[in-house]
Amino acid sequence: MGTFISRIIIVGLGLIGGSLGLALKKRGLAQSVLGVDSNEQHLETALRIGAIDEGTTDPAFFFDRAEADFSTSLSRPRELVVVCTPVGSVAATILDIAESAGERPILITDVGSTKHAIQAELRGKLPAPVRYVGSHPIAGSEKSGPRFADPELFAGKLTVLTPQEKANPADTAFLEHFWNALGSSVIQIPPEQHDAILARTSHLPHLLSVLMMRSLQVGDHFLLGTGFRSATRLASGDPTIWADIFFSNREACFEAMQRLEKQFELFRKFLENDDWQGLLDYLAQAKRQRDALER
Amino acid sequence: MGTFISRIIIVGLGLIGGSLGLALKKRGLAQSVLGVDSNEQHLETALRIGAIDEGTTDPAFFFDRAEADFSTSLSRPRELVVVCTPVGSVAATILDIAESAGERPILITDVGSTKHAIQAELRGKLPAPVRYVGSHPIAGSEKSGPRFADPELFAGKLTVLTPQEKANPADTAFLEHFWNALGSSVIQIPPEQHDAILARTSHLPHLLSVLMMRSLQVGDHFLLGTGFRSATRLASGDPTIWADIFFSNREACFEAMQRLEKQFELFRKFLENDDWQGLLDYLAQAKRQRDALER
Repeated sequence: MGTFISRIIIVGLGLIGGSLGLALKKRGLAQSVLGVDSNEQHLETALRIGAIDEGTTDPAFFFDRAEADFSTSLSRPRELVVVCTPVGSVAATILDIAESAGERPILITDVGSTKHAIQAELRGKLPAPVRYVGSHPIAGSEKSGPRFADPELFAGKLTVLTPQEKANPADTAFLEHFWNALGSSVIQIPPEQHDAILARTSHLPHLLSVLMMRSLQVGDHFLLGTGFRSATRLASGDPTIWADIFFSNREACFEAMQRLEKQFELFRKFLENDDWQGLLDYLAQAKRQRDALER
Repeated sequence: MGTFISRIIIVGLGLIGGSLGLALKKRGLAQSVLGVDSNEQHLETALRIGAIDEGTTDPAFFFDRAEADFSTSLSRPRELVVVCTPVGSVAATILDIAESAGERPILITDVGSTKHAIQAELRGKLPAPVRYVGSHPIAGSEKSGPRFADPELFAGKLTVLTPQEKANPADTAFLEHFWNALGSSVIQIPPEQHDAILARTSHLPHLLSVLMMRSLQVGDHFLLGTGFRSATRLASGDPTIWADIFFSNREACFEAMQRLEKQFELFRKFLENDDWQGLLDYLAQAKRQRDALER
């Protein structure tokens, strides 16, 4: 694909930010990849593994210096900022960057797991030359930090773009090419719908893993099999990241839990009514659905 | 270890029964391993993979013939019957076998995932020479059938014995040696307590996998990540086996779900009270518990 953009600033060098840097460098997609993180150890790790060319704790640093990049055009941005911080600080980080950027027409995206709260926080607050379109690459791990970074994290995965109605189609198209270049497919979904789906497919599974861990009693640990381990793997995820996700998507998570409880009531009825065949059909349907995911 | 017992009859040649046969043959623990299954295809597969020496659809067949083995002593049985059918038919199968065995002093165990219902069904119904002690090897897979049988399925795992108060200690000790010889550690737990623990550590995770699959909406499938896949892997389990498990342990499963719902209420309060730190601590505790399982 060759160089795609002059420079990319990655803000937040955790697993996703670090992987993004590695992926960009490996594919030669940017002339320079710059990293920002308040955690100096993350900066050091990101430099050491080659995820970034340069790092700083202060995002303003890069904007003060690089006058040459001012000429970003609307149709083809020459610099892109990707905010990879936990979702609760994405909007504030974007507002900080917008202020540092001054009159530069930069394009900003993020990789947060929820999209509606960020867009609500930004509404009406971004100066005109700063453009924002949300991204959510459906990729991750229960591991965290740049030392687990993987240049192929996005390959073969799906990235959701959640442009607002007034987003510039050229920016959305640019981001689509950007994620494609990292090996990811791209679809567009409105932010509220994105959050409702993710509540069911990602936040609820995570929540249930946590609730199962917290439901254990002393002595249960003797009798944990591989099934329990796989069902609760997600509970090892980074608590800071997940507290943010749950806070930024609380209503959709409550709704997803309500849907689950309705399914539980169906299940309970089969047992209470001694309806063995009904339960068998219910379980067989779940099996068919689950088996279909492996195809 | 060498030969351990003259013959073993495995009734039910699914994943567990087939694996048991392979494990016995591989370790040379029995002079002959005989298999019983109403499904002729399972019998053929079990013979082909070498899990059994001989197979039949009729359990009485082996008892009618083998007069030589009649001399089983109390302290060291010379024949053992292991019932590996789905849990809902274990008790009836044991009663059938007891009837076929006539006056033979056989020892019977099973590998069912719940123990209280079986023992309740058998209470007072077994003729005196027939002894029963329940086993539950905590080993399995979401796969089913003898073609997935694995001679190392029990190695490094734990098997629970659930002897009733009046069980002969020699039988319990014999079964302990038996499972040890297959590579499994052994502990003893009363049946009710076993079922309550398993409801939290096995049946609830399975149930939640199923409920999550059934909570999905059309279109959600686009946005399923590796997290959802690992959290719902169990839903691919055999519906017949699981319908039996849920029916035979319904009260403990309801209780486990109630415990989970109480944890959900704690979680909900953190969000409703804007208690970010409280939620963080809660998630961090779950992470510590989950991480500890990997050590």
